[in-house]
Amino acid sequence: MADPRFFKSAGSFSLTELADVSGCEVRGDDLETAKFNDVGPLTSAGPEAVSFIDNRRYVGEFERSGAGAIVLAPDLVGRAPAGAALLISEAPYRAFALIAQAFYPPEHGSPEISKHAHIDPTAKLGAGVRIHPGAVVGPGAEIGDGTLVGANTVIAPGVVVGKNCVVGSNVTLAYCLIGEAVRIHPGVRVGQDGFGFAPGAGGHEKVPQLGRVLIGDDVEIGANTAIDRGAGPDTVIGAGTKIDNLVHIAHNVQIGGHCLIAGQVGTSGSVRLEDFVMIGGQAGISGHLHIGPGARIAAQSGVTKDVPAGQTVVGFPAEESKSFWRKLARLNRLLKGDEGH
Amino acid sequence: MADPRFFKSAGSFSLTELADVSGCEVRGDDLETAKFNDVGPLTSAGPEAVSFIDNRRYVGEFERSGAGAIVLAPDLVGRAPAGAALLISEAPYRAFALIAQAFYPPEHGSPEISKHAHIDPTAKLGAGVRIHPGAVVGPGAEIGDGTLVGANTVIAPGVVVGKNCVVGSNVTLAYCLIGEAVRIHPGVRVGQDGFGFAPGAGGHEKVPQLGRVLIGDDVEIGANTAIDRGAGPDTVIGAGTKIDNLVHIAHNVQIGGHCLIAGQVGTSGSVRLEDFVMIGGQAGISGHLHIGPGARIAAQSGVTKDVPAGQTVVGFPAEESKSFWRKLARLNRLLKGDEGH
Amino acid sequence: MADPRFFKSAGSFSLTELADVSGCEVRGDDLETAKFNDVGPLTSAGPEAVSFIDNRRYVGEFERSGAGAIVLAPDLVGRAPAGAALLISEAPYRAFALIAQAFYPPEHGSPEISKHAHIDPTAKLGAGVRIHPGAVVGPGAEIGDGTLVGANTVIAPGVVVGKNCVVGSNVTLAYCLIGEAVRIHPGVRVGQDGFGFAPGAGGHEKVPQLGRVLIGDDVEIGANTAIDRGAGPDTVIGAGTKIDNLVHIAHNVQIGGHCLIAGQVGTSGSVRLEDFVMIGGQAGISGHLHIGPGARIAAQSGVTKDVPAGQTVVGFPAEESKSFWRKLARLNRLLKGDEGH
Repeated sequence: MADPRFFKSAGSFSLTELADVSGCEVRGDDLETAKFNDVGPLTSAGPEAVSFIDNRRYVGEFERSGAGAIVLAPDLVGRAPAGAALLISEAPYRAFALIAQAFYPPEHGSPEISKHAHIDPTAKLGAGVRIHPGAVVGPGAEIGDGTLVGANTVIAPGVVVGKNCVVGSNVTLAYCLIGEAVRIHPGVRVGQDGFGFAPGAGGHEKVPQLGRVLIGDDVEIGANTAIDRGAGPDTVIGAGTKIDNLVHIAHNVQIGGHCLIAGQVGTSGSVRLEDFVMIGGQAGISGHLHIGPGARIAAQSGVTKDVPAGQTVVGFPAEESKSFWRKLARLNRLLKGDEGH
Repeated sequence: MADPRFFKSAGSFSLTELADVSGCEVRGDDLETAKFNDVGPLTSAGPEAVSFIDNRRYVGEFERSGAGAIVLAPDLVGRAPAGAALLISEAPYRAFALIAQAFYPPEHGSPEISKHAHIDPTAKLGAGVRIHPGAVVGPGAEIGDGTLVGANTVIAPGVVVGKNCVVGSNVTLAYCLIGEAVRIHPGVRVGQDGFGFAPGAGGHEKVPQLGRVLIGDDVEIGANTAIDRGAGPDTVIGAGTKIDNLVHIAHNVQIGGHCLIAGQVGTSGSVRLEDFVMIGGQAGISGHLHIGPGARIAAQSGVTKDVPAGQTVVGFPAEESKSFWRKLARLNRLLKGDEGH
Repeated sequence: MADPRFFKSAGSFSLTELADVSGCEVRGDDLETAKFNDVGPLTSAGPEAVSFIDNRRYVGEFERSGAGAIVLAPDLVGRAPAGAALLISEAPYRAFALIAQAFYPPEHGSPEISKHAHIDPTAKLGAGVRIHPGAVVGPGAEIGDGTLVGANTVIAPGVVVGKNCVVGSNVTLAYCLIGEAVRIHPGVRVGQDGFGFAPGAGGHEKVPQLGRVLIGDDVEIGANTAIDRGAGPDTVIGAGTKIDNLVHIAHNVQIGGHCLIAGQVGTSGSVRLEDFVMIGGQAGISGHLHIGPGARIAAQSGVTKDVPAGQTVVGFPAEESKSFWRKLARLNRLLKGDEGH
């Protein structure tokens, strides 16, 4: 299943072992000696693989699946295909994540500093650091123990990267301090100048950008995302926050912990997000706004005012979600009623 | 016209030769001995250059053009400037494309592996491969005959690139199998982890991303576009599909053949596009949706439900195009009628 | 304040010197001997630092600020915190920009061509050029006096970069001519093929892209932005225009001088912007449109027709701003009135 060209399973595991790592309740005929060696999608997983169902859209595939074991919610137990062992969880996607992590733990290659990397003699490299060919590590930069720096990545002077980070290939890091276990995907740009100009009839005056980017532990940043450094204050990304591809984080933005920010989202300058905010793809937030803890911003929304804690907003200008959909339904009735005129 | 600093014409060609390569009907006084050595815009093409008109917006420029020959549709023949030879086609833009390709065929530099590239000894390089300085080719990777790998591009372990591809500079390719004659522009990221997390109150659990990216023949991928690998299934781009700049293709997305995807489009995870789908710039598609063959999604649309074959949709939430525009017209009348209140 | 790990102040300055560089009127007890050594935000600037207030949202922070000097508009003088020297200006953000530039002038490192850069012997390098490790400069390229080429940046054959430019790391420049004092941030792509295909039922024919990108003096281009070269005409960016991160500029687009283009904006092919146009984040412009001088396009707008000089537009399809907001207010009243039904 997982292509051995690219992936190597750490299995096999018994059902009891899988229940242990995932916290699932297990049902099966052979808890100890049946062995599972991989995970895979419902449609292609075979008798030695573990699959999962989380989205009702795929119940048909679930009922026909040939997977040897399936992670599922309790209410789907009755519809499970005959012969599949069951791993039952109230949070099946999370349980599956833990099982998949057991089969495919993060890679830890042997420490190696490529002789084709360009490392300033004043840079400090921790134990077990890996640096791939073409990477550049500038004066005074610090790379924590166990961190990987990908090929052709550029780490500017003074940057600090914590322990056990994965910095992908072709990345640029500047003017930033990065925590532990941060994953930065290829093409990410961190720390460049914010878009700070004092407009004027004779041209726009550049405002020097004198802050930094501070990134907490366990943050993940998607490919080709750009995070500008602060203009004076810092730009901050809180611990555990996950950012998807091609996201734009402007200067002075402060993002709390454990936020989820989908692809192509844009946040204007000085926006503040509290913890556990979720933002759908291509949404945008105007400058200087405050987004309360647990707020959700639907995909493509354009947020033009503060969002209270826990509220879901949608549309442009974004408004409370139930109100938006109710008004849209009314509008559609109204415009249909107009049809005869 | 085309700046000789950057481009070298393979001309000259006679009108008969141009008619042959393009399938045009030709009208002119001197089909054999008049020679054309370049192509160019209507406003600047001179007597030895070929231009074209495809967009009615430019009829004025067409009527005043000094081009020696013009590719055009039959109904514009009567408005052609005196003295211009005419290359008549029902598909003038396509005919012009073929003529421009004759003048400027794809470059094939001499095979050369830069001594400043970093190529693992276990990588397999085909005949006539060119690899520019700073490129990194990992263990077990395969580069097909005649393929170019641009400067500072990183090809991760195990990646397969087919024959006669052009991989631009500063690209990252990982966990992917790429067909023949694929063009990948600078800054493209292929194969990084999809945005897969099982959310939870205590933080978000990473779901290992165990699929690949499969890219068909003749695909073109624009600058700084990011295509994530599948979570378990593969992410697939069908043959002949063309993708513009800064596009986000999430994990498990399956795109058919000959789709056209404009700049900054975003597709959420597990979306399926059939063949010949067209998507305008900045449009977005929610997760797990199915877009039928030949469907068209207007620019900036937010698609929230399946789109049937051949349908055009627009707006957020996207709806059938004629309905959208009719309702908008009604709405505008309604709100104007309200003006006196 | 500004982290000495990354920034080095050129201060200190007296109030009289600060008034001189900024054109401010100054009020303070000690114009000559009090010394200021930094700039900083209202909330953290101390007695030796200069801060500013420009956005009314921050009046509270202003009133409580411990900054030694504050740049402000005349009408806020009465609310200034006791003890702060005042630098009064009708354009306080601009005045602060000039003061910050005095403290932090653009860096000019010592000229140095890294021995790990790959420079073609036919490339021409001006006086005082700096080229960082891993950079590639192709045959016939020209780099102007005092220009910096960042690490792992690729400058393709024939490209001309003017004097005193800063080209960041991991950038790709091709088929372009670039003016003086241009700042190009990391990951920018300039000059790749535009998205030019003649669609057809049997597949899409590639149209060779034979123009260039011409970039005027004092332009700034944000991280991971992509600017395609022209198809035949050139793509043009006028002098003094500032472009933010992740912007998509398609082929043949002509942008005037001193435009401000925010993050994730997309312009389709052959769009023309006159001087001093401002575009908010994530807005898009359809192909071949003309945007008059001084026009403003609100964030997330989708522009589908020409915009006259000086007009502000918003929404999709974008319309004149006052009309948009008036109609939206009416619509909301209408749908509320419908609530009882």
